[in-house]
Amino acid sequence: MVEIITIGDELLIGQVIDTNSAWMGRELNKAGFDVQRITSVRDKKEEIQDVLEKASMRAKIILMTGGLGPTRDDITKKTLCEFFNTHLVFNQEVFNDIQGFLKGRVKNINELNRSQALVPEKCEVIRNGMGTAPIMWFDYNDSVVVSMPGVPLEMKLAMSNSIIPRLKQKYQPGIIIHKTVLVHNIPEAVLAEMLTLWEDALPSEIKLAYLPAPGRIRLRLSARGTDGQRLQDQIDEAVDGLLPLIGDNIYGEEDLPAAEIFAGFFQNTGKSLALAESCSGGHLAHLVTSVAGSSAYFKGSLVTYSNEMKQKFLGVKAKDLEQFGAVSPQVVEQMALGALKATGADYAIATSGIAGPGGGTDEKPVGTVWMAWAASGNKVVSKRFRFGKDRERNIWRTSETALIELMQMMKKGEI
Amino acid sequence: MVEIITIGDELLIGQVIDTNSAWMGRELNKAGFDVQRITSVRDKKEEIQDVLEKASMRAKIILMTGGLGPTRDDITKKTLCEFFNTHLVFNQEVFNDIQGFLKGRVKNINELNRSQALVPEKCEVIRNGMGTAPIMWFDYNDSVVVSMPGVPLEMKLAMSNSIIPRLKQKYQPGIIIHKTVLVHNIPEAVLAEMLTLWEDALPSEIKLAYLPAPGRIRLRLSARGTDGQRLQDQIDEAVDGLLPLIGDNIYGEEDLPAAEIFAGFFQNTGKSLALAESCSGGHLAHLVTSVAGSSAYFKGSLVTYSNEMKQKFLGVKAKDLEQFGAVSPQVVEQMALGALKATGADYAIATSGIAGPGGGTDEKPVGTVWMAWAASGNKVVSKRFRFGKDRERNIWRTSETALIELMQMMKKGEI
Repeated sequence: MVEIITIGDELLIGQVIDTNSAWMGRELNKAGFDVQRITSVRDKKEEIQDVLEKASMRAKIILMTGGLGPTRDDITKKTLCEFFNTHLVFNQEVFNDIQGFLKGRVKNINELNRSQALVPEKCEVIRNGMGTAPIMWFDYNDSVVVSMPGVPLEMKLAMSNSIIPRLKQKYQPGIIIHKTVLVHNIPEAVLAEMLTLWEDALPSEIKLAYLPAPGRIRLRLSARGTDGQRLQDQIDEAVDGLLPLIGDNIYGEEDLPAAEIFAGFFQNTGKSLALAESCSGGHLAHLVTSVAGSSAYFKGSLVTYSNEMKQKFLGVKAKDLEQFGAVSPQVVEQMALGALKATGADYAIATSGIAGPGGGTDEKPVGTVWMAWAASGNKVVSKRFRFGKDRERNIWRTSETALIELMQMMKKGEI
Repeated sequence: MVEIITIGDELLIGQVIDTNSAWMGRELNKAGFDVQRITSVRDKKEEIQDVLEKASMRAKIILMTGGLGPTRDDITKKTLCEFFNTHLVFNQEVFNDIQGFLKGRVKNINELNRSQALVPEKCEVIRNGMGTAPIMWFDYNDSVVVSMPGVPLEMKLAMSNSIIPRLKQKYQPGIIIHKTVLVHNIPEAVLAEMLTLWEDALPSEIKLAYLPAPGRIRLRLSARGTDGQRLQDQIDEAVDGLLPLIGDNIYGEEDLPAAEIFAGFFQNTGKSLALAESCSGGHLAHLVTSVAGSSAYFKGSLVTYSNEMKQKFLGVKAKDLEQFGAVSPQVVEQMALGALKATGADYAIATSGIAGPGGGTDEKPVGTVWMAWAASGNKVVSKRFRFGKDRERNIWRTSETALIELMQMMKKGEI
């Protein structure tokens, strides 16, 4: 069992988001270690000491980051000395590293820099490959306390190269295998009901978690034990059991953003893509182009926010805009077909909706979105969606849904 | 004093980064409350209970997020019942809200949805404006425990609209006034050096924080005390002192995203805007359309990812693409002028660059971005930027810089 302690006022006032803990949790988990608690405290000696004492009663492994800088407000080292009843000693090797690191960066090495070479006598020093703060490893009884800098790159290097390998050697953790199944178009409560029997039948080694995002749910299965092959088989069997229940709603089996799942699929088809966006306002193009390599299949997007532009660039008929409104199957289908024609792409997606907060009517409330998908040969399919009231969320859901739907329709040969 | 407890296995295994705590810390700080500790625990009853007990001995205000979903792994509600020695009762108002929220989203409301209307008898329910999980407020002695959903949008709405106002009323923290000055185009260390004397002269009531983001720095001045007028005067005076030092680099004086600062300025000019995007890939259009009301001035964006599209929609000359490459002043200026002509807008912005990770050369390394700004009457200005190696960050910096630069040039009459 592991506990993480992150230290620094900036975390508590929200100036910095603690991304270190999540990274450490992920890497430790992969290595077979469970993090049971993460605590963030201010740069105050009594508070750090309190957390350290309590954590050491619960966990065998305590990993700390932060509070190791040369300035006055950094007091982790002093606190560790008191905790382990030891004192600071000058370490020539650390000082050599500091000199090497600062060479060419500062004119003179000052007292503050020199003070970083003072380390608690009872600890084993792990060299910091990227900065001036030494990493301190304390062994006591069967437990370990490690103190690392809060700078993410320095922490990551130390964790990957030294700390995780040492922990594995010392504690010989079991094997843990994760599998994430991506599900769309089913509300969480409905999904949970559909999966009740399946969930009850899961072997005890497998733990299930629902991770919901707007319009999507990630189902995470984690298997733990000592026999890797057996765990993998159990996971595979569990995932196979999902297919007859919710197969149509599964759009991916890797823990990746929707845009990357789509890119992985679409790139392999060898086809090209164009977009015609109204309510998604460029965000759909952004999702597509956020994935490196998209220029291989992405022609471009016509973000036609005004009706005038919809006519000019996509050939939408003025009378249809007039009669049905921009948020209609008639218009969105013309947009998709127009994008195909204008760009010569193999597939096109069009969006038109009311993102909010204004613009809603009784018939078409905020959150109403029409989407169309077109393929060469004048094939076109359109669907209506009713999202929520939040503009940002509506834009996100429109873009992600547009990509997932196209992928699912192409897989089933529906377009 | 406040403690935050975030609950969920996904936080401990690092599948989700705890961004809620930082947001809460920031907002609480603005309201005059100090967060002293943040603890993340798994969905385990004994662990939640343990954290809650210890926190309640240290802090008067405990804010919890997570573990309120309808599925089995969510056990916060049950844990709170045990902690407060109470039991769950059916709440008709919550159920009505759930019905309203799910209307049109699910066919039938099932047992799991219904179970979300069960709330501890001893708590006061705060309505969730965006989801099905009720928010629970427990008063005991002089202390408060609040349990909120972990979904960021739901938590933020509840915090802003209900919880922070209630906490302020109950605990009357002192007066705290914040002012944020938005600065671009100066590196943090240079800015800090330029402001040394100004900073030394700040009155003791004012605390200064540098909040850096790629390419921009938010300078936050916070004044805390009891005399609101005096604090406001001190803040105003401090900001006045900044103008002669870095006036040209200040692009806003409100803590808002660049897109909103731009929208507030541009909407008032009564002019219209069009975009021609290559490396920003739709993200620039997304920034513009992320602000409600943008349809009043935004014509659209031609996201021309391929050279073919740049020629067809923007009239870029094939020989210039050939001779100078797509990432060149010649091409980006033609893109901006082409967007003006194609859309009839008053102003246009064009972007073309190498977002990475691939595509860099010695002459044009990854991060090289050309931008152009055009105005009716064939006026056009172009500039080159050298950003970094990270694709996502390059896209962000391109979009934000494009908007800030146009605004600053328009203010100075340079375009």
